[in-house]
Amino acid sequence: MQRYKCKIAYDGSEYGGWQVQPNSMTIQSLCQDALYRLTGVKTHFTGSGRTDSGVHALAQVAHFDSENPVNIRAFNGILPKDIRIITIDPVSRDFHARYSATSKTYRYHISLGEVHDPFTRHYSHHMFYSLDEQLLHKACAKFIGTHDFTSFANSSSEGAAAKGAVRTVTTCKASPTDFGYTIEVTGTGFLYKMVRNIVGCLIKIATGKLPIDRIDELFDAKDRTLAPSAAPAKGLFLCNVQYPERFS
Amino acid sequence: MQRYKCKIAYDGSEYGGWQVQPNSMTIQSLCQDALYRLTGVKTHFTGSGRTDSGVHALAQVAHFDSENPVNIRAFNGILPKDIRIITIDPVSRDFHARYSATSKTYRYHISLGEVHDPFTRHYSHHMFYSLDEQLLHKACAKFIGTHDFTSFANSSSEGAAAKGAVRTVTTCKASPTDFGYTIEVTGTGFLYKMVRNIVGCLIKIATGKLPIDRIDELFDAKDRTLAPSAAPAKGLFLCNVQYPERFS
Repeated sequence: MQRYKCKIAYDGSEYGGWQVQPNSMTIQSLCQDALYRLTGVKTHFTGSGRTDSGVHALAQVAHFDSENPVNIRAFNGILPKDIRIITIDPVSRDFHARYSATSKTYRYHISLGEVHDPFTRHYSHHMFYSLDEQLLHKACAKFIGTHDFTSFANSSSEGAAAKGAVRTVTTCKASPTDFGYTIEVTGTGFLYKMVRNIVGCLIKIATGKLPIDRIDELFDAKDRTLAPSAAPAKGLFLCNVQYPERFS
Repeated sequence: MQRYKCKIAYDGSEYGGWQVQPNSMTIQSLCQDALYRLTGVKTHFTGSGRTDSGVHALAQVAHFDSENPVNIRAFNGILPKDIRIITIDPVSRDFHARYSATSKTYRYHISLGEVHDPFTRHYSHHMFYSLDEQLLHKACAKFIGTHDFTSFANSSSEGAAAKGAVRTVTTCKASPTDFGYTIEVTGTGFLYKMVRNIVGCLIKIATGKLPIDRIDELFDAKDRTLAPSAAPAKGLFLCNVQYPERFS
């Protein structure tokens, strides 16, 4: 039995997220179904973590075990065209897509101005109003570091009960793009909807609707109901999952 | 009565092309319907030319006449999100989106390799096999100049009967991209499916399936049935329509 590490890109628009759900088509379930067709064996396809309904991935990582190698073109031939296996590589048996991950990087695309470009309409969040760039940078900086992210986590966070809501964000920065801004967030762990909740808060601050000091108050309050609502799913991309050198 | 010049971007994936058709949803018909709702007057929305079913535009140009200015946000509010009015500007009465155009620029996106990126799957033509870059450049150069494009035009070409099939291509070049190649074609006029037929021929040559001298033979033969089939619509973008200085 060999363990394989997979990178997967997907347009999440049409799916109920990554994780197998009873009444929804998900990326994990379609990949598992494809593996079953290819190998004849029920195979678990374990991702680095969930992505929500509508969230995209440039390089989600998953692992699976198989007696025989799986051909990438055959795998993609079964999957719908909005889910693509990018790489399949043999990896040591102690690799685990979720537990071996040391950090993850997400990007959130904000499109500003009169017109939402039709070619990125499924891949960015559009707003007519502008953002104060200086406030945006200052607000991003507030999220860097180790904090209790309870106010920025929806309730069903994986492992939140066990591990608490303290997480470390190593990068949180906004970069101007042709259309607006991209916000990049890297952290050693994320709670449920944490990136979208951070971005929702950044938008409120950078549009002058919330004072920047509110971020500190929200960290202290540990109360999701006091914080701004999450930014829409379609702007969010899981861009990279980092692992120790020996697994890459 | 004021004439207005409009720029329009659209994702053509879901439409039967630009031009009003009896049994198909088209970009022109949706824009005309929106103008009727906004102005209360049946208004003709005249484009620079047709684009086929599935072809996209970054900046199609059209004109219309109206007693009152049309608000761009209201216009976009009625249109589906895959059609966006980018600009509406007053223009002199002698401007005509089609007859005033001096040239047009198209780009065709080719994606190469094992995986077709899911985020550009509707906006590029994917091939597993590679292209010979030197042959591609040489073949592009063959199309530059004034030629009889009969072999590269499908039969229902607008005005072909009246004007013949002689057209002038001023630019035909291939540029490498992250995913493959983009082929840019600028010309003073185009026949029906001419760009897609040129690209279809370029692909045959750059994959070694057709000798490069066949291009000259096809110009001489003036017979569409001898030339390779058209490249798929989804890779093609109408990128720009050029007009004399006084109209821009």
